[in-house]
Amino acid sequence: MNLEGLRVMGIDPGLTRCGLSVVQAGRGRAVLPVAVGVVRTPSGDDLALRLLRLSRAVREWMDEYSPDVVAIERVFERGNVSTVMHTAHAVGVLVLAAAEREVPVHMYTPSEVKKAVSGNGRADKKQMTAMITRILGLSEPPKPADAADALALAVCHCWRAPMIFRQRHGATGAGRSTAVGTTPAPHNQNRSLPS
Amino acid sequence: MNLEGLRVMGIDPGLTRCGLSVVQAGRGRAVLPVAVGVVRTPSGDDLALRLLRLSRAVREWMDEYSPDVVAIERVFERGNVSTVMHTAHAVGVLVLAAAEREVPVHMYTPSEVKKAVSGNGRADKKQMTAMITRILGLSEPPKPADAADALALAVCHCWRAPMIFRQRHGATGAGRSTAVGTTPAPHNQNRSLPS
Repeated sequence: MNLEGLRVMGIDPGLTRCGLSVVQAGRGRAVLPVAVGVVRTPSGDDLALRLLRLSRAVREWMDEYSPDVVAIERVFERGNVSTVMHTAHAVGVLVLAAAEREVPVHMYTPSEVKKAVSGNGRADKKQMTAMITRILGLSEPPKPADAADALALAVCHCWRAPMIFRQRHGATGAGRSTAVGTTPAPHNQNRSLPS
Repeated sequence: MNLEGLRVMGIDPGLTRCGLSVVQAGRGRAVLPVAVGVVRTPSGDDLALRLLRLSRAVREWMDEYSPDVVAIERVFERGNVSTVMHTAHAVGVLVLAAAEREVPVHMYTPSEVKKAVSGNGRADKKQMTAMITRILGLSEPPKPADAADALALAVCHCWRAPMIFRQRHGATGAGRSTAVGTTPAPHNQNRSLPS
């Protein structure tokens, strides 16, 4: 199976900061960076207004970059109660934006992402950032952490997609070609990556 | 302050079952039932598809009944982890639908609703259903539980709205009149209440 050209949007969900990224699968394990950014909504604002702003931002990204698939971090019940709930509300509107565009959504736990990207499910932020910088051939590490996490989610999906495809379709992958999302990457000055 | 005519949508959020209701404030503490129903999405379906269906249903309700305000239950981290997360995702798309229509959203905890409606923050389901049936002058108790809860949330807001208004505007309420949402209630056969 050949996933070359597959365009993946990675989302590190959050209401105060939401990391968004777009990458494109290249030959073999190559992954090309397309865009990365962070959407912020002021913590003092009304929840409804914050969700509306986040929704508009992610829809704009989806309409601009036309991802074939979305990879988003699975939220767990841990840490600050209010933050977890806000993040879960954010996931609702983020997943909805994908569903409205019929873009499939895959969820990954932080340890699945760490394992896929670095080979170690317990890699720390520094190791993950170094791996992402190297994999995507960036001239400098992506910042802030939410941006790096969004890129890691997208890379994770690129590398796990062939396995997910085989599991779902029972194919061996030999000699099969599934060309998807070969649209050229639109670049936005504010979102383009140093590569 | 006079809230007569205020139209309130009550939402008992959930992904498997989401209770929706619309009531209209009458004179004094009178509350008139307008509509009640439950939106269901199959638990075996994809999360994205379920959120899309819920979003479409609540948007349809909002466009049909034009509520002035939405009262929704605040979700807590307790009970089954997966259910809580699904409910929190649902809250995200429900609140977003209100925000997109510039309809203000108020959140109430279950005990706030119980206290406002029955005078007892620890009232059980049976007591609450009996109170709601009586307050709204229904000929039979609303079913299922999610529908009754959605009505209770709406009634709770009707009765707390004057206090919230005074707190925000620092008014005593004496001699003030704030007419809002006096649109007549459209009735839908499938959603109309026995009254």
